[in-house]
Amino acid sequence: MSAPIHQTDRVKQILSWYGSDSPGVKANLARMLNHGSLAGTGKMVILPVDQGFEHGPARSFAPNPEAYDPDYHVQLAIDAGCNAYAAPLGFLEAVADRYAGQIPLILKLNNSDTLAKVDQPCSAVTGSVQDALRLGCAAIGYTIYPGSGLRNQMYEDLRELIAEAKDVGIPTVVWAYPRGAGLSKDGETAVDVAAYAAQIAAQLGAHIIKIKPPKEHLEQPEAKKVFEKYNIPIKTLADRTRHCVQSAFNGKRIVIFSGGEAKDTPAVLEEVRGLAEGGAFGSIMGRNAFQRPKAEAVKLLQDVMEIFRKAK
Amino acid sequence: MSAPIHQTDRVKQILSWYGSDSPGVKANLARMLNHGSLAGTGKMVILPVDQGFEHGPARSFAPNPEAYDPDYHVQLAIDAGCNAYAAPLGFLEAVADRYAGQIPLILKLNNSDTLAKVDQPCSAVTGSVQDALRLGCAAIGYTIYPGSGLRNQMYEDLRELIAEAKDVGIPTVVWAYPRGAGLSKDGETAVDVAAYAAQIAAQLGAHIIKIKPPKEHLEQPEAKKVFEKYNIPIKTLADRTRHCVQSAFNGKRIVIFSGGEAKDTPAVLEEVRGLAEGGAFGSIMGRNAFQRPKAEAVKLLQDVMEIFRKAK
Amino acid sequence: MSAPIHQTDRVKQILSWYGSDSPGVKANLARMLNHGSLAGTGKMVILPVDQGFEHGPARSFAPNPEAYDPDYHVQLAIDAGCNAYAAPLGFLEAVADRYAGQIPLILKLNNSDTLAKVDQPCSAVTGSVQDALRLGCAAIGYTIYPGSGLRNQMYEDLRELIAEAKDVGIPTVVWAYPRGAGLSKDGETAVDVAAYAAQIAAQLGAHIIKIKPPKEHLEQPEAKKVFEKYNIPIKTLADRTRHCVQSAFNGKRIVIFSGGEAKDTPAVLEEVRGLAEGGAFGSIMGRNAFQRPKAEAVKLLQDVMEIFRKAK
Amino acid sequence: MSAPIHQTDRVKQILSWYGSDSPGVKANLARMLNHGSLAGTGKMVILPVDQGFEHGPARSFAPNPEAYDPDYHVQLAIDAGCNAYAAPLGFLEAVADRYAGQIPLILKLNNSDTLAKVDQPCSAVTGSVQDALRLGCAAIGYTIYPGSGLRNQMYEDLRELIAEAKDVGIPTVVWAYPRGAGLSKDGETAVDVAAYAAQIAAQLGAHIIKIKPPKEHLEQPEAKKVFEKYNIPIKTLADRTRHCVQSAFNGKRIVIFSGGEAKDTPAVLEEVRGLAEGGAFGSIMGRNAFQRPKAEAVKLLQDVMEIFRKAK
Amino acid sequence: MSAPIHQTDRVKQILSWYGSDSPGVKANLARMLNHGSLAGTGKMVILPVDQGFEHGPARSFAPNPEAYDPDYHVQLAIDAGCNAYAAPLGFLEAVADRYAGQIPLILKLNNSDTLAKVDQPCSAVTGSVQDALRLGCAAIGYTIYPGSGLRNQMYEDLRELIAEAKDVGIPTVVWAYPRGAGLSKDGETAVDVAAYAAQIAAQLGAHIIKIKPPKEHLEQPEAKKVFEKYNIPIKTLADRTRHCVQSAFNGKRIVIFSGGEAKDTPAVLEEVRGLAEGGAFGSIMGRNAFQRPKAEAVKLLQDVMEIFRKAK
Repeated sequence: MSAPIHQTDRVKQILSWYGSDSPGVKANLARMLNHGSLAGTGKMVILPVDQGFEHGPARSFAPNPEAYDPDYHVQLAIDAGCNAYAAPLGFLEAVADRYAGQIPLILKLNNSDTLAKVDQPCSAVTGSVQDALRLGCAAIGYTIYPGSGLRNQMYEDLRELIAEAKDVGIPTVVWAYPRGAGLSKDGETAVDVAAYAAQIAAQLGAHIIKIKPPKEHLEQPEAKKVFEKYNIPIKTLADRTRHCVQSAFNGKRIVIFSGGEAKDTPAVLEEVRGLAEGGAFGSIMGRNAFQRPKAEAVKLLQDVMEIFRKAK
Repeated sequence: MSAPIHQTDRVKQILSWYGSDSPGVKANLARMLNHGSLAGTGKMVILPVDQGFEHGPARSFAPNPEAYDPDYHVQLAIDAGCNAYAAPLGFLEAVADRYAGQIPLILKLNNSDTLAKVDQPCSAVTGSVQDALRLGCAAIGYTIYPGSGLRNQMYEDLRELIAEAKDVGIPTVVWAYPRGAGLSKDGETAVDVAAYAAQIAAQLGAHIIKIKPPKEHLEQPEAKKVFEKYNIPIKTLADRTRHCVQSAFNGKRIVIFSGGEAKDTPAVLEEVRGLAEGGAFGSIMGRNAFQRPKAEAVKLLQDVMEIFRKAK
Repeated sequence: MSAPIHQTDRVKQILSWYGSDSPGVKANLARMLNHGSLAGTGKMVILPVDQGFEHGPARSFAPNPEAYDPDYHVQLAIDAGCNAYAAPLGFLEAVADRYAGQIPLILKLNNSDTLAKVDQPCSAVTGSVQDALRLGCAAIGYTIYPGSGLRNQMYEDLRELIAEAKDVGIPTVVWAYPRGAGLSKDGETAVDVAAYAAQIAAQLGAHIIKIKPPKEHLEQPEAKKVFEKYNIPIKTLADRTRHCVQSAFNGKRIVIFSGGEAKDTPAVLEEVRGLAEGGAFGSIMGRNAFQRPKAEAVKLLQDVMEIFRKAK
Repeated sequence: MSAPIHQTDRVKQILSWYGSDSPGVKANLARMLNHGSLAGTGKMVILPVDQGFEHGPARSFAPNPEAYDPDYHVQLAIDAGCNAYAAPLGFLEAVADRYAGQIPLILKLNNSDTLAKVDQPCSAVTGSVQDALRLGCAAIGYTIYPGSGLRNQMYEDLRELIAEAKDVGIPTVVWAYPRGAGLSKDGETAVDVAAYAAQIAAQLGAHIIKIKPPKEHLEQPEAKKVFEKYNIPIKTLADRTRHCVQSAFNGKRIVIFSGGEAKDTPAVLEEVRGLAEGGAFGSIMGRNAFQRPKAEAVKLLQDVMEIFRKAK
Repeated sequence: MSAPIHQTDRVKQILSWYGSDSPGVKANLARMLNHGSLAGTGKMVILPVDQGFEHGPARSFAPNPEAYDPDYHVQLAIDAGCNAYAAPLGFLEAVADRYAGQIPLILKLNNSDTLAKVDQPCSAVTGSVQDALRLGCAAIGYTIYPGSGLRNQMYEDLRELIAEAKDVGIPTVVWAYPRGAGLSKDGETAVDVAAYAAQIAAQLGAHIIKIKPPKEHLEQPEAKKVFEKYNIPIKTLADRTRHCVQSAFNGKRIVIFSGGEAKDTPAVLEEVRGLAEGGAFGSIMGRNAFQRPKAEAVKLLQDVMEIFRKAK
């Protein structure tokens, strides 16, 4: 099964960045960093499946109907050698017992559906730290929408959840997704905004930060001036990734990138290569994984891991 | 590092016996069962080091002075490929941060010293479930002394700790050590008493039960009559072990055996062979491990693991 | 290291103004007043770094990319001999363990980003008094926006945090930044408004009050009449500083002044001279410090300290 | 006043032994290690004054009547350059306000008088962690009596206080004083018993452990056998000190030694030399300090510090 | 100071109106009624200083710059022989320690500044009942704005504070100041509105009610009809005062009147004579006191007291 774990130097270095945290929080970070095909490398590939709640079942699972089944995803994450599997309460409750101890679980603590029309987006808190303990999770997850008029409420709820989770030895993964009335559509993935969102998540106490691959657009006029004055390179995805990782405490927080909308395999791998070259700690890849037939998905995830393993 | 964990059939079977427990408790049981050289076999070898508190530092560590150092033990457990390392609060606090995620930890929640003279032995509660969470432990440990006039207080304290631990996904290891005014000195390891203690621990909700290797002596007259009437075999250690394991819910609770006082290597291995043949789930071996020079200790622990791996 | 501390008369006098506070609150005030190059003088120079959250990472750190790193700032504050270092939760968590006991820390408990568009500005509460204890902080910090329609919510949140902090021996630094629909752009730094903001912070129970260097503008017509009738001098920065310090309980509260936007060194020192002449207790200087190369920043901060040391 | 603190390598090393503690606890340990004449050396000399409660006022203060006054002691500790001053609630309340920030305070949380006759000694809890915060203390103190039939109650009370104090960033000093029906009078200072008491305190989570200088006597027969078998040197005080320090996690916990009963200056210094040679981290010296005229006491404490500074 | 207290019949009578209150609440009412020059008369003159918060420091204190100092006011109240001194948290904290026991203090628990522009006025809660206990106050104070759209929130907050204060033996003074979108500018001091406000405060449980001297204007058409139908006299200030006192439970609640804006001495005394003739229980006089030079202020306050002493 597993040989004795001798912590790698890279994992030791990463854990040293979280010096104010308890051994319990570090142990759970280590559980994720030391699990799966990328164990010990300091890189992570996570399978997240919250799209059923966020986009509805047919949009999420019809391309590969096996994916309607909660068992499908956790097994996919295990078979592909992911570091962890992230999902909302219902999906985790459906599998946590049978799969206990087989893969680190991340309980997504807030979720938003698309049935209501709202100006200021805000997710509902749909789980608790106590749920995470009960289900044996290695981390909690939470989404913030910087740019929304309700951002402060989200920051404050997150802050309380992080504190509560820390207290019981559980680290937090923050999905930092700029969105809302304060931003243009392009602004949601602008490199200045993505980097800013990563900084906010880090300042709020996130242990792992998930952002979208940043685009070349610059949204905020004051930021644009600074990028130009200091010649911050943003031409390639690697450049932009580098800026975002730097923006999260000079690379001293784990920053991983979402795969975004479904695309073809070469496009996915091309994007991952850019992220890896720019110093990303890994990917969190949902639709591009589970909407493919399983064998293809496992292959794709393993190819992604291979890219991260070889990086730097 | 670690390849993807596919639960073995044996581990699945063992977890199935704990059906009333939450996924969190099972995940932590699985963490211990899937760690180290015996990962996946359903067998466990644990290194426990509470003798500094229980017997004093010189008696415990003078034979191998490196063992005065808290780092020594956790590293020994890792190097030998143990499933877990158990110790009181101080010893775990001294290492939990640096060794976060490298080996499952068991926080011994009560301890007793030998400086006071008391008629009815009872350990002090020296740690909490919250400490276990903070330190990232996979289990708590607790000692009961069936036979002591204070047994009920210990049972009740244990019961509360088990309930509290379950609530946060942590299983409990019970050291069931008959002792006190109700028993003769021989009676403390009598096979009827050992089996009875295992039963009590199981009834109190223990997930893992630790007893001493039972001797051929029968303590209680009423039990003696039954053993004779039904020809319960107790001649060999394997026989007696079989009876104790059967007494813990017909083998549906994990029962492991302590190594007891320091003895020479052949005697240790001989004893382990008897335990393994009798269906023991493993050993929890302290003084016989850490009082030897490290290389010898690692070799011994690995030989012990090899015996358990081959059993049945 | 540090010689025995014999409290200076000036520090004794300052502490005497906080007579209703517990010894714990006073001890933490003394820790800040007795630390760094200005120890014992009753003057303070503090390094605050919350701009990553408030303005975004590139705008804050691109001028001096070493500043992306959380270690950079605390080391800068130590090397320059500041009295304290103030930052949001994430930045403090990243360094508090390694720098334990080396410099008083101030945990900024609320923060605001600039990604959302809102009419009535209000910061999110992003940390707790318990965090301040856990991280070993000497004070908490909180920003109020007098002039915002949400001011009452901020006052009430602050009031609760001050009470909670007092209860555990922690003093509070209030950033009093007039802003919002009630004020013109010029009004935000008008001398009547700045003095009013200092008064509000003092009445709310602030131990240390931070305001911006006041400008000659008078915002409120009723105040303008009074300034003219009583010939309150506001021509020089020293005049205006004097009025603001007087407005904070006749100089019986510690009032320090922010450095504001980055400017060249002579301009910074010129401003500080005006503040010092007017009786300011010190400066809290962020961007003008950390956006310079480190050697320059240390030099500038030391020159600022020298000005305050010589004042009065 | 105090120059910028650059942590010495020795203090960094000592703090590294407390890796599972929060930055707050470490900051308070650092406050004590970085204060007074021994700042930065890793050595500590502490003035404790609980004898008024423990032995009565005349026995404690009549030899030097100025010592009836609570101000006398804190001023003595400051003037002599001690690392900290320890006393029960009343003595600290009498001075904490006026001396805020001048010297680290240790609140002794339990105390015992000698007016009642009891078989099983046990101190009363006479203060709280909340008191320590309110009074601005750097640590709490607590006495255990291993050997007493009530030891378990003391261990459990201590365990709860340590947990509560840790939670708010306060470390704990444990007075480990073997006493009670389980021990002969000589046994109270026997080297095996002193070392055992240090081990117990360390396992209970003490950050700093205070024991009495151990005598050559061996109390426990089982321990005697081990000391003889392994030739553990106990002839000189340095030998015995070395064994006690080793028994506290191989020197990875701060162990300091009480001065015991009043004796003449050469005898005090002789004893301190033995302690220092054996690796003691320092002394906690009450009666031998405050029962002398002040000038003499300051001189003696400074001589003691000088011995520790030069050791190793 | 005060000779042995033999309760006067008038004070006994006043206390009898508060029969449902605890002895603690009554004792604090008695403390105020039995303090200062008017002790025992059933009349009260209180010095309130919240204008720094409400109107800004220059507008409040520039006419008499000594008044910037928090010590000034409490000393003025003592020197003039007032029954009590009322102020917000900051002002009381600055003096409560040094002036402990010298004059009854009233902690103003909510306050409003004039920097923001809002349609519906509402004060922020800026202190707590716990603060009042901690500072040794004899009463809490709270302002309601009948006429504001947020009045219900204020009534409910007040109701909770009164209940909480009663629970610990503290009475409540209510500033009943009609204001907001529901009223014309003249309506704020209309006699029907002032009387109505007094009634509301009484119904909410106020022990002492403060209103502004009512003007001859009648605001509400329905009220106007009734005043005319029943020939309620409102021509003189004494008439109108009589109606207001009658409206507060037929004179069975203490109703005192504010001095309003600064005016010359004859005008102040003229107004007070009208109030006294109409049965007012006293005055609460801020700006007209502290904006005068101290000797003048003391003289004025003593003259006011003289008028009340002689009334009825």
